[in-house]
Amino acid sequence: MKTVLITGSTSGIGLGIAREFAKTKKYQIIFNGLETNGPDIAASIGKEFGIDVMYSPANMLKPEELRNMVSEGLAKFGKIDVLINNAGIQHVSPIEDFPDDKWLAIIGINLNSAFYLCKAVWPGMKANKFGRIINIASAHGLVASEFKSAYVASKHGIVGLTKTLGLEGAPFNITCNAICPGYVKTPLVEKQIADQAKAHNLSEEDVISKVMLMKQAVKEFVSVETLGQMALLLADERSNTITGTALPIDGGWNAQ
Amino acid sequence: MKTVLITGSTSGIGLGIAREFAKTKKYQIIFNGLETNGPDIAASIGKEFGIDVMYSPANMLKPEELRNMVSEGLAKFGKIDVLINNAGIQHVSPIEDFPDDKWLAIIGINLNSAFYLCKAVWPGMKANKFGRIINIASAHGLVASEFKSAYVASKHGIVGLTKTLGLEGAPFNITCNAICPGYVKTPLVEKQIADQAKAHNLSEEDVISKVMLMKQAVKEFVSVETLGQMALLLADERSNTITGTALPIDGGWNAQ
Amino acid sequence: MKTVLITGSTSGIGLGIAREFAKTKKYQIIFNGLETNGPDIAASIGKEFGIDVMYSPANMLKPEELRNMVSEGLAKFGKIDVLINNAGIQHVSPIEDFPDDKWLAIIGINLNSAFYLCKAVWPGMKANKFGRIINIASAHGLVASEFKSAYVASKHGIVGLTKTLGLEGAPFNITCNAICPGYVKTPLVEKQIADQAKAHNLSEEDVISKVMLMKQAVKEFVSVETLGQMALLLADERSNTITGTALPIDGGWNAQ
Amino acid sequence: MKTVLITGSTSGIGLGIAREFAKTKKYQIIFNGLETNGPDIAASIGKEFGIDVMYSPANMLKPEELRNMVSEGLAKFGKIDVLINNAGIQHVSPIEDFPDDKWLAIIGINLNSAFYLCKAVWPGMKANKFGRIINIASAHGLVASEFKSAYVASKHGIVGLTKTLGLEGAPFNITCNAICPGYVKTPLVEKQIADQAKAHNLSEEDVISKVMLMKQAVKEFVSVETLGQMALLLADERSNTITGTALPIDGGWNAQ
Repeated sequence: MKTVLITGSTSGIGLGIAREFAKTKKYQIIFNGLETNGPDIAASIGKEFGIDVMYSPANMLKPEELRNMVSEGLAKFGKIDVLINNAGIQHVSPIEDFPDDKWLAIIGINLNSAFYLCKAVWPGMKANKFGRIINIASAHGLVASEFKSAYVASKHGIVGLTKTLGLEGAPFNITCNAICPGYVKTPLVEKQIADQAKAHNLSEEDVISKVMLMKQAVKEFVSVETLGQMALLLADERSNTITGTALPIDGGWNAQ
Repeated sequence: MKTVLITGSTSGIGLGIAREFAKTKKYQIIFNGLETNGPDIAASIGKEFGIDVMYSPANMLKPEELRNMVSEGLAKFGKIDVLINNAGIQHVSPIEDFPDDKWLAIIGINLNSAFYLCKAVWPGMKANKFGRIINIASAHGLVASEFKSAYVASKHGIVGLTKTLGLEGAPFNITCNAICPGYVKTPLVEKQIADQAKAHNLSEEDVISKVMLMKQAVKEFVSVETLGQMALLLADERSNTITGTALPIDGGWNAQ
Repeated sequence: MKTVLITGSTSGIGLGIAREFAKTKKYQIIFNGLETNGPDIAASIGKEFGIDVMYSPANMLKPEELRNMVSEGLAKFGKIDVLINNAGIQHVSPIEDFPDDKWLAIIGINLNSAFYLCKAVWPGMKANKFGRIINIASAHGLVASEFKSAYVASKHGIVGLTKTLGLEGAPFNITCNAICPGYVKTPLVEKQIADQAKAHNLSEEDVISKVMLMKQAVKEFVSVETLGQMALLLADERSNTITGTALPIDGGWNAQ
Repeated sequence: MKTVLITGSTSGIGLGIAREFAKTKKYQIIFNGLETNGPDIAASIGKEFGIDVMYSPANMLKPEELRNMVSEGLAKFGKIDVLINNAGIQHVSPIEDFPDDKWLAIIGINLNSAFYLCKAVWPGMKANKFGRIINIASAHGLVASEFKSAYVASKHGIVGLTKTLGLEGAPFNITCNAICPGYVKTPLVEKQIADQAKAHNLSEEDVISKVMLMKQAVKEFVSVETLGQMALLLADERSNTITGTALPIDGGWNAQ
């Protein structure tokens, strides 16, 4: 039985990935997220699939809480085999009006939290000679869109962190990879639809077809199942030579 | 039951990938390769896993033979769901001495053959509203090594073809992706060890540790099972939004 | 006085780059191209800027003619310091209808010719401990557009060749770089406007604004002067550490 | 007469770039840096080349000081045409021991400061319909090295910011590009030589040949003149279609 810690896993992409891991019945899951009913969400997945779970409300902006979440996970399950840094926020604004506090929050939540968590799980992974770190970056970890300076910077940043830790982990059978999704229909994206509608002065329907999926050749949202399948592959024991990569699952966005 | 055509599948990476597809018992396999006992190799996999197989000796440099292989496959199995362009050759030489005929053979086998085969399977995939094309490129599809001008050009070229067809296939549920392996221990690589030993004036042991795997952070050859697992993921129905990508499985080579 | 050989330099991008080199009065120029009045074009530039010039009608598909062009250049000027592989053709078609002969011509002219020429100039550059090879690739050397499989493959291929020769040339002060332009208003592009209008069933105006420059954030064609300025920088003696790169000049195309 | 603001320009790369701009006598320069004799350094360049200069001691970690530097520059020179974000720090440590405060300082100085400055100069550039932002990233903006998690993350982050602002600036003739140098012999690198010698337990000579320049094919440090020449090209009026790029000047590092 392996243990996976997934940040931001009480909704959206994180919850979807958690379900894919749960289905295999080979993973205990440490849930994390801001939903006030986080413990119930975790428990219900645990019950549905007959696996052990844990929930931590650790705030991505508070290093001490992140370290505590790892300690509690290690105390309960003995090891953390897989860390999935998934929690993230977005803000859309032209650079000249981009609020300083939004910039700092995005860098803090999308990038710095991953540093704190990788650092915290590393000694255990190193001792076990096994570790799989999976960062849920974004197509915006590889290319940009206007009005998203902080998000694009944070996601490129986490791709850089991914490469570095891929190299550092190589002698210890710790791999680190990023998955770079295009648009997934999550609460975050639903909010973006509304935000972009305002920014571009368009209807929400037009935002979806002409703005959001404009850059994807495949005119469908990426499914959380697809992301989960890739994450499972990366987490596999046999995937020791896949490391330091940024894998697009973006409907062809990065191909053009 | 789906049908997969794998070029160069009577040895090395291609055979390894074929075995992974065979194990699922969900694929009929069209084998191809230069081994004179190709029919026996195909038959033995078919028997081992209880699946239907076919073998074609089509030469990668002969477009007519490639088209015939596709026609025969369609005649036997009714459709080709997955095409894996894997056949390839290598030649190592400084640019000033690189033989013209070697350049042309490498471009012909590693790149042009994929064009002919994609073109040949495309109408059927389009009609079926399902197709998965997987090009086995190389870490050298993304970066270079000295003395490999033709190989690097051909592998970058196939990455370009991959992106184009990822875009063209999007409306038809045809995806096209490249897998970019680092060093896999195949007959081709065993020959390269010998070639590079000559080119660099080193022992074969030193070629492995100091030349071949020098660029990988993970000091192990990539296994064909890992490549097969990724190919299976890409071939999956649920992977419709993974397209136009070049996925490194290279022990961290491209991360540094 | 340095010597620069520029293929496809009797019109379009090549001619524009030649003019930028001519303006510096520091280069003798070997012109090449299919224009029947090529000798006049060369002579007129020579006269305008007071520099020595030469013209060769070498056909990019004929290796012997390419080698002869280099020999003649060496015979006349004693050395070739800078080689600019610029000649190229395009063809737009869905993969299933893409004519085999067009594929081969595009790979031959856009990619193989560069191999032959690099190989031919290499010994002289090596002996002189100075060489600058500049490949005019394309934004399509880094990303794709649908219906351009051969062009995208050839341009990715030349980027691969560029990286390889960047590495091989390092000990000899030979650099090799690619410039990756977006849309430049050349005869080739004017033809593409017409071709795409047909392929997409649009007016030519719509092709320009909605198809061609759709992928550029900067809604202006790239000027040949800009390309020439970058080529001059790469050709400079001080640019010895710029090598193996693919430099986009594409109005932000690759940034998104 | 144009105005260029260069952060970290009282030593190293920044000072080298400032000299190249000064030599053209077409730029007024706003110097910035921590050297206590910053005003003297600025004045001496001003005198040597007969140009107007200014000096600001703004601390990269203090947004208010960054905004004041821009205000003072605008007050003195009326406009800031070119912003070069160059100031940066490094720290080398395995992830598990990487000090939290070093991570935050590196992200703050190498990445966040660029955000604050771009935001501050943007309205003026937009009003003038001219702006050139040049971020001095690093080869580590594109690939990683072990033990440099914060630096690599920050430099990838600034490449992401670069792409975003390249897109946002397009309608206003504001370009934003990153230059990605390999190893330049600066005080920072001299310190890194010492740090890496400790980290790898090697002599400083071995660090240079076997560690630092190991990844460059060209076994020479990148010169500040080369960086300056590229920065001048990017700053040029004619370079309006070069935007959102990350240009390696790294001796072939990224080609392999």
